[in-house]
Amino acid sequence: MLGSTHGTLTTDFRARVEACGDTPRTAVHSTAAPSATGAGAGAGDALDVSGRPLHADVPDLDRFFRPESVAVVGASDAEGRPNTGITRQLIAWAERVGARLHPVHPTRSTVFGLPCHASVADLPEPVDLAVLLVGDPLPVIEELAEAKVKFAVAFASGFAETGEEGAAAQDRLSAAVKRSGLRLLGPNTNLNAFQPFRDDLDGPAIALITQSGHQGRPVYALQELGIRLSHWAPTGNEADLESADFISYFAEQPEVGAIACYVEGLKDGRSFLLAADRAARNGVPIVAVKVGRTETGARMAASHTGKLTGADTVVDAALRQFGVIRVDGLDELQDTAALLARARRPRADGVVVYSISGGTGAHFSDLATEAGLHLPTLSQAKQDELHQWIPDYLGVANPVDNGGHPVGDWRGRKIIDAILADPAVGVLICPITGPFPPMSDKLAQDLVDAAEETDKLICVVWGSPVGTEDAYRTTLLGSSRVATFRTFGNCITAVRAYLGHHRFTTGYRSPFDDAPRTPSPSYRKAQALMRPGQQLSEHAAKQLLRAYGIRVPREQLVTSAAAAVRAAGLVGYPVVMKASGPQLAHKTELGLVKVGLTSASQIRDAYRELTDIARYENVPLDGILVCQMVERGVEMVVGVTQDALFGPTVTVGLGGVLVEVLRDAAVRVPPFGEDQARAMLTELRGHALLEGVRGAPPADVDALVEVVLRVQRMALELGDELSELDINPLMVLPRGQGAVALDALAICR
Amino acid sequence: MLGSTHGTLTTDFRARVEACGDTPRTAVHSTAAPSATGAGAGAGDALDVSGRPLHADVPDLDRFFRPESVAVVGASDAEGRPNTGITRQLIAWAERVGARLHPVHPTRSTVFGLPCHASVADLPEPVDLAVLLVGDPLPVIEELAEAKVKFAVAFASGFAETGEEGAAAQDRLSAAVKRSGLRLLGPNTNLNAFQPFRDDLDGPAIALITQSGHQGRPVYALQELGIRLSHWAPTGNEADLESADFISYFAEQPEVGAIACYVEGLKDGRSFLLAADRAARNGVPIVAVKVGRTETGARMAASHTGKLTGADTVVDAALRQFGVIRVDGLDELQDTAALLARARRPRADGVVVYSISGGTGAHFSDLATEAGLHLPTLSQAKQDELHQWIPDYLGVANPVDNGGHPVGDWRGRKIIDAILADPAVGVLICPITGPFPPMSDKLAQDLVDAAEETDKLICVVWGSPVGTEDAYRTTLLGSSRVATFRTFGNCITAVRAYLGHHRFTTGYRSPFDDAPRTPSPSYRKAQALMRPGQQLSEHAAKQLLRAYGIRVPREQLVTSAAAAVRAAGLVGYPVVMKASGPQLAHKTELGLVKVGLTSASQIRDAYRELTDIARYENVPLDGILVCQMVERGVEMVVGVTQDALFGPTVTVGLGGVLVEVLRDAAVRVPPFGEDQARAMLTELRGHALLEGVRGAPPADVDALVEVVLRVQRMALELGDELSELDINPLMVLPRGQGAVALDALAICR
Repeated sequence: MLGSTHGTLTTDFRARVEACGDTPRTAVHSTAAPSATGAGAGAGDALDVSGRPLHADVPDLDRFFRPESVAVVGASDAEGRPNTGITRQLIAWAERVGARLHPVHPTRSTVFGLPCHASVADLPEPVDLAVLLVGDPLPVIEELAEAKVKFAVAFASGFAETGEEGAAAQDRLSAAVKRSGLRLLGPNTNLNAFQPFRDDLDGPAIALITQSGHQGRPVYALQELGIRLSHWAPTGNEADLESADFISYFAEQPEVGAIACYVEGLKDGRSFLLAADRAARNGVPIVAVKVGRTETGARMAASHTGKLTGADTVVDAALRQFGVIRVDGLDELQDTAALLARARRPRADGVVVYSISGGTGAHFSDLATEAGLHLPTLSQAKQDELHQWIPDYLGVANPVDNGGHPVGDWRGRKIIDAILADPAVGVLICPITGPFPPMSDKLAQDLVDAAEETDKLICVVWGSPVGTEDAYRTTLLGSSRVATFRTFGNCITAVRAYLGHHRFTTGYRSPFDDAPRTPSPSYRKAQALMRPGQQLSEHAAKQLLRAYGIRVPREQLVTSAAAAVRAAGLVGYPVVMKASGPQLAHKTELGLVKVGLTSASQIRDAYRELTDIARYENVPLDGILVCQMVERGVEMVVGVTQDALFGPTVTVGLGGVLVEVLRDAAVRVPPFGEDQARAMLTELRGHALLEGVRGAPPADVDALVEVVLRVQRMALELGDELSELDINPLMVLPRGQGAVALDALAICR
Repeated sequence: MLGSTHGTLTTDFRARVEACGDTPRTAVHSTAAPSATGAGAGAGDALDVSGRPLHADVPDLDRFFRPESVAVVGASDAEGRPNTGITRQLIAWAERVGARLHPVHPTRSTVFGLPCHASVADLPEPVDLAVLLVGDPLPVIEELAEAKVKFAVAFASGFAETGEEGAAAQDRLSAAVKRSGLRLLGPNTNLNAFQPFRDDLDGPAIALITQSGHQGRPVYALQELGIRLSHWAPTGNEADLESADFISYFAEQPEVGAIACYVEGLKDGRSFLLAADRAARNGVPIVAVKVGRTETGARMAASHTGKLTGADTVVDAALRQFGVIRVDGLDELQDTAALLARARRPRADGVVVYSISGGTGAHFSDLATEAGLHLPTLSQAKQDELHQWIPDYLGVANPVDNGGHPVGDWRGRKIIDAILADPAVGVLICPITGPFPPMSDKLAQDLVDAAEETDKLICVVWGSPVGTEDAYRTTLLGSSRVATFRTFGNCITAVRAYLGHHRFTTGYRSPFDDAPRTPSPSYRKAQALMRPGQQLSEHAAKQLLRAYGIRVPREQLVTSAAAAVRAAGLVGYPVVMKASGPQLAHKTELGLVKVGLTSASQIRDAYRELTDIARYENVPLDGILVCQMVERGVEMVVGVTQDALFGPTVTVGLGGVLVEVLRDAAVRVPPFGEDQARAMLTELRGHALLEGVRGAPPADVDALVEVVLRVQRMALELGDELSELDINPLMVLPRGQGAVALDALAICR
């Protein structure tokens, strides 16, 4: 029955957005050129059925990061003034990037020997970028706009991060910026965007986005370990430009191999996801620390940059949906971003552990396997090959235990090359827990040499806590082809992210391309059922589901015992009878549900009993529902909740008492496709219940997935008109028999 | 009913082991002296009811680690021989520890200028330690014994790690050692025990135990960061001395602050737990990497040192029961052991995060809170005090954001001291993600200075990936009072372990002291029911439970319909009827259970139907059970399984389909007390079910705990005679009403 009466819905839902003019950048970013058209051109027009954009608006920030001319408003060279140090740094930076710098100050004639201008209006040329060192940037914005300044940076603090008053000031600033047409970074940002980058490093770089300058410093310091950085956007309070803008821009830059983010809160959920989608289309990985796993963290982050952190389970799901790699520590951020920026596309997902100690191999393999890495057993032929150079009593199936890397001759390289030549192997990891220079120096050099001649990934874990050894500092960090880590854990996290990223982006299909743009025929029916400000009765909520082609039991709403008996005849015995009314919850606990009624007399008794209880409990009813009894299946819940950051979200979970006890549920932010709907089910700890346990038949998972997608469609079309929807239970029948919503709760805004 | 008929059991079970002569070393190890009596004296006599020891056998290894005279059997100074390098290292080591070294070699007259002896018999004095550099140590053992040598170390490999033949050779070696009376380290070990330790470091040290030399190197290298090490025991194949022996010994040494272990497999579960118990009594923390989280790891580890790794869930539970801190990475092993070795007993469990950036504070607090650390909100008075030195707009509630540590004056120290003075604060953590020398150098120095004057713990996270900065290398690592980490994650892991360790050992009461030593009256009844090699019938299994005072429904086993009707009268209507027989499983699926029978005719019909099905399915029956219907409660499972390493283990989990799907179960290794039985329940993801969900009454948790303890008693008394016990379901009734085993399966060995 599912899908038959509403066949058009599915087709409509999955319709390709033909109008989209994107030319996706190929996922192999090392060879990719940025898309010539960009997404900005015309793409902003496309809106989904909820009125939200379907494409990231990619700002052109070329002149922000490489301006030809810069004004420093509030420049100073007076001893002891904070602005003096900043001005000095900006002058040095402008020299380095080849920009002309113009100090602006109402009373000074020169600053550090440069001619100073009284106001923005007096600038000798239109400038690309104005750095505002003034306490209140608001009055300057209009002047900047008149002077056709493209970008401004505001350092001043005291805005949304300080509370309500500051938030109001920030709103005024945002509005002024919007009117002006220029783009603003800040307020409450800092000099990080104007830090020098090492220009002697080549290969793909990390672009860094941080909402706290201090938190970006260790990533910036990676340059001292030979990792290239190309940009740093310290976004501060994001009154205008936000993390999403920088992600979209960085994803188009050919030198950017990975984007590293430190995010405390998102300004807007949708824009972040659109930016992540753009990066995914371009095959550019995003690695992010996102604060807010706990209430404490969320509160702290809010007080730091004045942003919401969002419900973390929703944030977590949304990031995963769009391939953003979430990590916990800044060390993981560094190590994962560095690997993803530089490593080429994997040739295979097999990981081989090569070690000079059986213990190290066993330990690393144990942790790697537990983390889900695939350690293939090497073929007998490959093992025989390796045993030419490794004594027979040592295991070489994977991990490969060399019993001590051969140093006197060519055998060490032979072993490494033989492992890399195996087509099942995409990654070779060599954990060196303790340096023993006569051996580990040669081993490190052999690995570095081998890395120059392969396009497979070689990782080394330099486990010594000292970290001043030559083999580490010079040999390993000197190579841009070997990924060097300090801990097993970070290596495993990064390699898993690397393989996962390429799995995700290979053949990535954006859910925004498939998102519905026009309301389905269901929408009109649904609208007629909505009662603003009210909770719908069970009967009305089920009609809402029916409107979207979700099966509900045959049922009739009756207001007399005689009508109930007639209804039972039409619905078919045995029946269930339930009190129905708005505001009605906990029906079972109140005794307002009667099941398994098989005769007219039972129905008359039940009718009387239900109305008596309702009267006694003072519950207003719109009638009694006489419903078809549905066979047993797997009880699930499917629902819609509004998230402060992402709008409507769709949840699916195990039904019954257990959903409360175990909170075994999965959530997604629309739009998402069938693949994600299916992934939600496998995320459930109790998903085996759907496969049939103890002789129960497998459940109709296809029907369940279809319900999830139809609920998504409803959530998108009704938007925030539908505050909450809860189908509980959705009885998922055996395979081929569909799924039936036995009860539903809907709350209109 | 519970506890009434078997009141003696409880008393008996909880009887204090009066005979134990231990004087527990106080938990404050910095002030503790080793127990004068030791546990060796007489304690080995005490056995529990299963015949296993109740106290660790603590070997006196003083002369092993600090011998006065050493023989090197197989010593060499011939160019190019592997033994030559080893001999040279041993001579250097002997000089350092002040031991006289005697080379032994059949044909040499001197080795490196020292007089060489043809055989052990020719040694000029009785030696404490013989280092065996010979290929086959077996023939030497007897000679050593005759020469009254106390300890031997065997480097040779080719034993249990190589397969069956090697294992047999190792067994012969073990037997010879046992006969000889000497104690042997190895075979398949190495020089690690004879490494030099820095003697310029003071304070409590780490004692290291490893089953792989390479894996111990980074811990050993901690000395280069100023962390003191006192011992290194590379246990190799553990033909005689095992990890447990070294744990017991180290736990008695006054200079040992923490024991760090790298364990691949345990030789014997019980001896490891007894050693951990000894360390817990003495308040000495054990931090361990234990390989074998996955099948892969277990297999690798087995092939490396030839030991079983045990079922990981059981290992994990056993380690936690005895306070062993399990970590995953060697970096965590280093950081956690270093902190635990040196930090004094916490004065409070409150953690304050002090940071120079709101972002860093928010991020660290988020991760710390998620990990379960307690970050108390500082009192308003304390906040006011801090705001004397910190601008008002910065949050100081905890995290304390100083907006940049004051460097020009005394304010920095004031802030730190004010935080430390708060009685709710036990730990101050300062994450410095990026060094900014003018500020971070002073901050580091202030923290180091403050640490000298407080007995509270100060931790610093030096987040720079570079690690060559002066403030880190000199100031922070130069302090033995500040605990310095490189990552948020490792700091949080270590601090959690530190607070957890002291919670665990404060008032630690050894479960071995309470373990039963003599069989209960139940045991005789139980023995009569056991049928070696057989699965008991449901009825017999329930009698076994009854023998241990576990309630089962009133029931009768009948072999005729007429007897069934009579039984129902005695049991009381309504009744359940079930087929009963040995080998009978999946009764419900076969239709061999009938519930809710309310009349004699229903009983006769049911009798016929059940026997018909049994005949049809060819299931041998010993009769039909007529059982009392039991009210509904929470369905649980309680069981006993035999673990290869630890013997009988007790499991409790959620019952029904969900135990299969969710595997929501907790396991413990006996002996354990009521506290652990209760902890098992709170470990269950679905434990809220026991508290009453959706209006259900709270379940009788006390009765459930009592059943778990009675099952433990049974498991201990029956030992491996009982291969498996599975009470499924145990119906736990509402509070005060007990728990009833509705079905049980028991398999005798």
